[in-house]
Amino acid sequence: MFSRSAMSFSRLIRFLAKDGNVYYGDAILPAGKSDIATATSAKVIQGDIFGQHRVTDQIADVKLLLSPLARKDIGTVRCLGLNYEQHARESNLPIPKYPVLFFKPVTAIAGPVDDIPVADIAQQGEGLDYECELVAVIGKEARNVPESQALDYVLGYAVGNDVSHRDWQIKRGGGQWGLGKGFDGWAPFGPGIVSSSVIADPNALHISTKLNGQTVQSSSTRDMIFGVAKTIAFLSQGTTLLPGDLIFTGTPQGVGMGRKPQLWLKDGDSVEVSLEGVGTCVNRVVYDKPAARL
Amino acid sequence: MFSRSAMSFSRLIRFLAKDGNVYYGDAILPAGKSDIATATSAKVIQGDIFGQHRVTDQIADVKLLLSPLARKDIGTVRCLGLNYEQHARESNLPIPKYPVLFFKPVTAIAGPVDDIPVADIAQQGEGLDYECELVAVIGKEARNVPESQALDYVLGYAVGNDVSHRDWQIKRGGGQWGLGKGFDGWAPFGPGIVSSSVIADPNALHISTKLNGQTVQSSSTRDMIFGVAKTIAFLSQGTTLLPGDLIFTGTPQGVGMGRKPQLWLKDGDSVEVSLEGVGTCVNRVVYDKPAARL
Repeated sequence: MFSRSAMSFSRLIRFLAKDGNVYYGDAILPAGKSDIATATSAKVIQGDIFGQHRVTDQIADVKLLLSPLARKDIGTVRCLGLNYEQHARESNLPIPKYPVLFFKPVTAIAGPVDDIPVADIAQQGEGLDYECELVAVIGKEARNVPESQALDYVLGYAVGNDVSHRDWQIKRGGGQWGLGKGFDGWAPFGPGIVSSSVIADPNALHISTKLNGQTVQSSSTRDMIFGVAKTIAFLSQGTTLLPGDLIFTGTPQGVGMGRKPQLWLKDGDSVEVSLEGVGTCVNRVVYDKPAARL
Repeated sequence: MFSRSAMSFSRLIRFLAKDGNVYYGDAILPAGKSDIATATSAKVIQGDIFGQHRVTDQIADVKLLLSPLARKDIGTVRCLGLNYEQHARESNLPIPKYPVLFFKPVTAIAGPVDDIPVADIAQQGEGLDYECELVAVIGKEARNVPESQALDYVLGYAVGNDVSHRDWQIKRGGGQWGLGKGFDGWAPFGPGIVSSSVIADPNALHISTKLNGQTVQSSSTRDMIFGVAKTIAFLSQGTTLLPGDLIFTGTPQGVGMGRKPQLWLKDGDSVEVSLEGVGTCVNRVVYDKPAARL
């Protein structure tokens, strides 16, 4: 028997190791580093990430960081829109009275260094955009939880990119955002999940995006309209949140749509999203090649 | 080795048997009956519903029909809005140019005789409504499939109720529909899944709803704007549909919101949704009792 508090991880990663295996691990960071993406090794974790597990003494070398959760361990992917005050303003939309919820399919989830594939449908029209977001990972079943206890249901935090195609999201989707934000690989996250025992206050973290090395978003999770605890409490009303559910908590100002002139992602661009205390995901935009005409 | 075509089911059910076990089974219908809800026994299915499995000769008696798929076997739940011409008209909305997609969490899924729980949040405001829908169940991985082959990726069809709270869906959700349609148990479906080898054309079926025994929706899946094949082809563009993904394909005219006067569900109401060749789900609306004040 291993209790989670005594034997659990600080910084959960999932990785392809140099020995050829895929492991969950507790990242070992080089001295002076805090970005999980710098981890070159980890203590292997055995067991169920959401239940009984333990951090072993087996150390494995990291070859490639993967999505911090395997697809089978991911539940529902919820996302908030317009959850930063300055972003609502740049979008010319009123501050919402309640959290604005939409969903992505699990197939949108990708890892911290995976490419962002742009299929033919998303090469139509214009408006390919980035959104850096704090991602809260639910660790245990939550229904009708009060705000004061909501963070107890969080496994940890990561950073993600809510990749969006503005034409499909806003104009062609009948007003529903999921299609234009839900393509394969359009929700990279990572580089790992920092335990909620390490990050006590998720609403006091710097969050930012760099596009090809230039900073385009730079804000703090303090600017959230609905903080993480309030969001979880709200979403759990009449709805059971399950272990492995992800909540992308909205993006701050500075998205391409809100800039003058507007700034859209192109084939080959490198997008880097960062969250203080967690680290950085760096994903390259890669247009699907047209299918061969036979 | 058992090939799916030779040994697979015609009418998949999942049920609590009189022997106390939960099984997947191929429903045995009484002579002259076509509604899966009338099944009192089934041939037990062994193996992976989406992979290698076989219908055995073991017959088990049905005590209670459950959701035709276990939660672990359900992937992403997609739903279409405004996909019947007459329903778009009663909603005073234009015929959409592309399918209008939204999502429900897997926790919304329930079985064909389960209650529809109405939590405190959904007892606020007004607008509790029913929507009978054909549900297509994806049977194998599909990405960028052409319309002409799209039905090959369907495991089978069921009927479902896209239960909706119009205030939360339309007014309080910031225009995003998922919250007001996604509460626990708000997507009952069943009573079983009829194989696509039995239903060759899903767009030629009568579909209807009865509220407390009175018919309130009565239409045909022929009235769909985007038929099942076109819908799957569209949704698979740039997005991998996985085995166990469900697609609720929209509802015909006659919803409570479109009636004059409007007609909302109340605590204790019985809602029955039916699809020709599949059968009937009967679900009772049950308001959550207020939590005890201690």
